[in-house]
Amino acid sequence: MKLFNKIVICGGTHGNELTGVYLAKKHDWLLANPAAAVACRRYIDKDLNRCFALSNLNSNDNALESVRAREINALLGKKGSENVPDFILDIHNTTANMGITLILSSSEPALLQISAIIANEFSNIHIYLQPEKRDESPYLGTIAKSDVCIEAGPQAHGTLDAELFFKVERVVFRFLELIESWNNGTLPKINNFETFTEMRSIDYPRDSDGNITAIIHPALQGKDFCELKSGMPVFIGFDGKEILWEGETCYPAFINEAAYYEKGIAMSLAERFLHS
Amino acid sequence: MKLFNKIVICGGTHGNELTGVYLAKKHDWLLANPAAAVACRRYIDKDLNRCFALSNLNSNDNALESVRAREINALLGKKGSENVPDFILDIHNTTANMGITLILSSSEPALLQISAIIANEFSNIHIYLQPEKRDESPYLGTIAKSDVCIEAGPQAHGTLDAELFFKVERVVFRFLELIESWNNGTLPKINNFETFTEMRSIDYPRDSDGNITAIIHPALQGKDFCELKSGMPVFIGFDGKEILWEGETCYPAFINEAAYYEKGIAMSLAERFLHS
Repeated sequence: MKLFNKIVICGGTHGNELTGVYLAKKHDWLLANPAAAVACRRYIDKDLNRCFALSNLNSNDNALESVRAREINALLGKKGSENVPDFILDIHNTTANMGITLILSSSEPALLQISAIIANEFSNIHIYLQPEKRDESPYLGTIAKSDVCIEAGPQAHGTLDAELFFKVERVVFRFLELIESWNNGTLPKINNFETFTEMRSIDYPRDSDGNITAIIHPALQGKDFCELKSGMPVFIGFDGKEILWEGETCYPAFINEAAYYEKGIAMSLAERFLHS
Repeated sequence: MKLFNKIVICGGTHGNELTGVYLAKKHDWLLANPAAAVACRRYIDKDLNRCFALSNLNSNDNALESVRAREINALLGKKGSENVPDFILDIHNTTANMGITLILSSSEPALLQISAIIANEFSNIHIYLQPEKRDESPYLGTIAKSDVCIEAGPQAHGTLDAELFFKVERVVFRFLELIESWNNGTLPKINNFETFTEMRSIDYPRDSDGNITAIIHPALQGKDFCELKSGMPVFIGFDGKEILWEGETCYPAFINEAAYYEKGIAMSLAERFLHS
């Protein structure tokens, strides 16, 4: 059985996602991007959480975040080696109404079971599967053998919502307790829970210059993890014209995330699975 | 009677307050800080909306926003001269739960009456008086003989909330109609309305290094324009310790505005007046 011994918790991978920044300061966890945290910006030169593919880590790029990624990689034992942490928990915020979403980069039993227990004990928790090829995944957590990313929202970047702050803190400590239970072989088993698996992301409608021409429809705003079916409104143009969903039934997440406008992501689309 | 003939509407004075940025683009209004809008940041070098005191406008400061302030000042006829607009309407967003707040820098009858009519016709409108000495006030709107600043929230900076976008648009066009009624002498009179007058702002509790040690209490979060009385919780420490209000009865606004963490403002405190 896989054990989780070497564990790293980090926050402030994005400097304006303050729940993680201030939890990292409070508990002396790893503050991943201190320069961006001082500036209260997502990043200084480039998104740190897109710098951890092996190909990036082996480059000599001078961007502040590339340098910091190599520093963190060295500190944590070098991605791909045996010295890396067994587990990284990386704390993020989102402007989307995602409650606390546990993003798993693999569906290994320990993390799935622990997440299911958390979802059972706390309100408004979602389990989101985003399978990654670890070597080439750009996310910080993929340095470790296993990882979970916590997304907490809705919270405007650059602000702190007290309720969310203390809830994320409780979730992190409960997660650590449950990891210990797993290591001891005493983790309870939950049979009924739901997960969402990311399929793909979609962009805003844009004109030929790349400017957005429509925004999230009011009827979809805040409806992360709710069913989106053909014929339901999804965008509304600046001219007021509604755009209806014509795709498959799905469950959107990251709806109207501030940081994703520049990435060409209006929302991600997931499938829902009921485990029983 | 004072007439309002030369009118300027602007948005994007802060580049990440997207309601104004996109309304300005849609209607060809003045996009005040296009460089910051491209970067989707409040400002590049310094806050443009703190650059319009006469003393600033007469300096030779090279900061991007200082240069842009002088450009806007020249474009609009030079603050203090007779050529300036009669009226500027400047559109902003806030992460605070302020609905649509009309901020008046003077309580002249026309603007007060128009604002009262708007407050009567739309839901969740607040009239906020923040009297300014025009020459030394740093706000863009004070170039003009009169001005109103619209604050629309809650909206995370760098995002667009469709409902708020179209509501602000309706409010702006209604405001223009009512200015015409005033000019024609046909403006209806509303006798009963409320206004809030800013008294002062208060900062977050901080340690000797200037780091915040407490954040907005969950019971106060989102309670802009609600009564705050002695004994009610106002902050909560990262250690969970509650801090109760010990001051005079007041009505907070700008509670938990992202851009104000760096300005040392946790909220502004206002007095409430009932006009009848």
